Amino acid sequence: MNSSSAPELVIVGSIGIDTIETPREKRVEILGGSVSYACAAASFFVKTGMVGVVGTDFPREHRTLWEKMGIDLAGLQTEEGRTFRWSGIYEENMDNRRTLATELNVFERFSPELPEIYRDAPYLFLGNISPDLQLHVLEQIHSPKFVLIDTMDLWIDIARDKLVEVVDKCDMLTLNESEARLFTGTHSLMTAAEKLLAMGPQFVLIKKGESGSMLFSRESLFLLHAFPLDDFKDPTGAGDTFAGGLMGALAESGRIDEPAIRRAMGYGSVTAAFGVEEFSLERLSSLDRKQIDRRVETFLSMCTPA
Amino acid sequence: MNSSSAPELVIVGSIGIDTIETPREKRVEILGGSVSYACAAASFFVKTGMVGVVGTDFPREHRTLWEKMGIDLAGLQTEEGRTFRWSGIYEENMDNRRTLATELNVFERFSPELPEIYRDAPYLFLGNISPDLQLHVLEQIHSPKFVLIDTMDLWIDIARDKLVEVVDKCDMLTLNESEARLFTGTHSLMTAAEKLLAMGPQFVLIKKGESGSMLFSRESLFLLHAFPLDDFKDPTGAGDTFAGGLMGALAESGRIDEPAIRRAMGYGSVTAAFGVEEFSLERLSSLDRKQIDRRVETFLSMCTPA
Repeated sequence: MNSSSAPELVIVGSIGIDTIETPREKRVEILGGSVSYACAAASFFVKTGMVGVVGTDFPREHRTLWEKMGIDLAGLQTEEGRTFRWSGIYEENMDNRRTLATELNVFERFSPELPEIYRDAPYLFLGNISPDLQLHVLEQIHSPKFVLIDTMDLWIDIARDKLVEVVDKCDMLTLNESEARLFTGTHSLMTAAEKLLAMGPQFVLIKKGESGSMLFSRESLFLLHAFPLDDFKDPTGAGDTFAGGLMGALAESGRIDEPAIRRAMGYGSVTAAFGVEEFSLERLSSLDRKQIDRRVETFLSMCTPA
Repeated sequence: MNSSSAPELVIVGSIGIDTIETPREKRVEILGGSVSYACAAASFFVKTGMVGVVGTDFPREHRTLWEKMGIDLAGLQTEEGRTFRWSGIYEENMDNRRTLATELNVFERFSPELPEIYRDAPYLFLGNISPDLQLHVLEQIHSPKFVLIDTMDLWIDIARDKLVEVVDKCDMLTLNESEARLFTGTHSLMTAAEKLLAMGPQFVLIKKGESGSMLFSRESLFLLHAFPLDDFKDPTGAGDTFAGGLMGALAESGRIDEPAIRRAMGYGSVTAAFGVEEFSLERLSSLDRKQIDRRVETFLSMCTPA
């Protein structure tokens, strides 16, 4: 890919240095953050521009890794101070995660600025950052074909109105099932999805972890079984990798219709399944596109009823 | 259907009078049991013969309901004494069930005998009873085309060897994910399925509740998302209804290959989803085939990736 050409997909989100403990292993100060996982996943499909912030302590090797994966870093800011840090622990069967510490550091004053060359990007993924910052990014982009927005319980709790405002300006919202319930105050996912669609987006994607995912539109519903994972090392970033792979595959298709999104969800699932095989970007950075394509074909045929 | 003709599908299992409490409602002494749910589901597709036992106290109205649904009762035994009784309670979000009481009664001395006319049935479903009794049924049937066997944790715990013996004689084994793990002593469902296939059956169907189901063969894997249930009243018998609907649809197709089983799983899911809308057979007995067909088409298209 030509490094001076405009990215087809722009992704904004957090960049962190993570310390992660699982029942089998502990890894200290490894590369993490939603935009890191999402850009790595998307980079298999299209030229992807990263918008995020790191501190002056950010290791050169991480930047080199992103560059090797073909990620455009024109939107990466370096600010005086320490990079955002997060540490967490996964309990016995990996289905519960506890945060041990969060240090916002340079992320606290993050104001995402899009390089001129990013502003005509047709595809935009607003990763999980505050709705204020997501709105600030939306204001800088000219006329994207398709915008996906992710969020989390924190913003639903403390910035609900702003979040509703920005969701209305997006084409697709993605969240997990507990966030969908929290956001709408309803237990039924069908009713929750209706309420979320009423906020404006054309599609709502509810992620249910090992129960798969559901893509809602006003007229239809698509159910995707989870990719059958036999074993995995670190689920951190799986949702971001899923969304990044999805947006990369969708941007590559050049389409924004439901059949294209269904197929792109297959790419997202498979990319995420590869990602959790190792910590950080270790597996994704050693992966090639053919491996993804092969697994997607297998996965989609496993999901096809007849 | 001609009541004197031979059934295409024979199902053996328990018949119970259930008392069920959910967070919203309590129902006393209603019709239950694995063979009741499974035959009701299968009856939409083919002539189905029931093999089970009731006591002399068994209400006439239940028998009439089965007959109205077209179920053949030539294999139904009536023994001196009280019918099997079970009572249980579902906790807050219906995902945990506790048994409050079990009275075996006539079920304790149950010895399933197949009427002559049942012995040439091409399809057989060995519902959840002791492996000894399942084997006894297998010995009476002549040369079935396809035998499905269900089981539960109790038999895995107390009659493992006998269960392994009978599983080997069947074409397909169905169990839920915790039973698959218990039976094989492994956490990974992929490895568990391999071990179960090594016991002899051609197919292993692992049910994962709201995470859907997985159909394993030596060469392939099929993943079916759960039917999206918005609300339900009573999940009792859902697994039996699923398996009964699956076997009914498979028998109707006349086939035993994987594409036919994949499609039959769609029928099983939809029939089970209808069943849990009300207690006992209340919803199934007021349902017609067209409603099932319509919902199956919708469901299968919801599950089709592209």
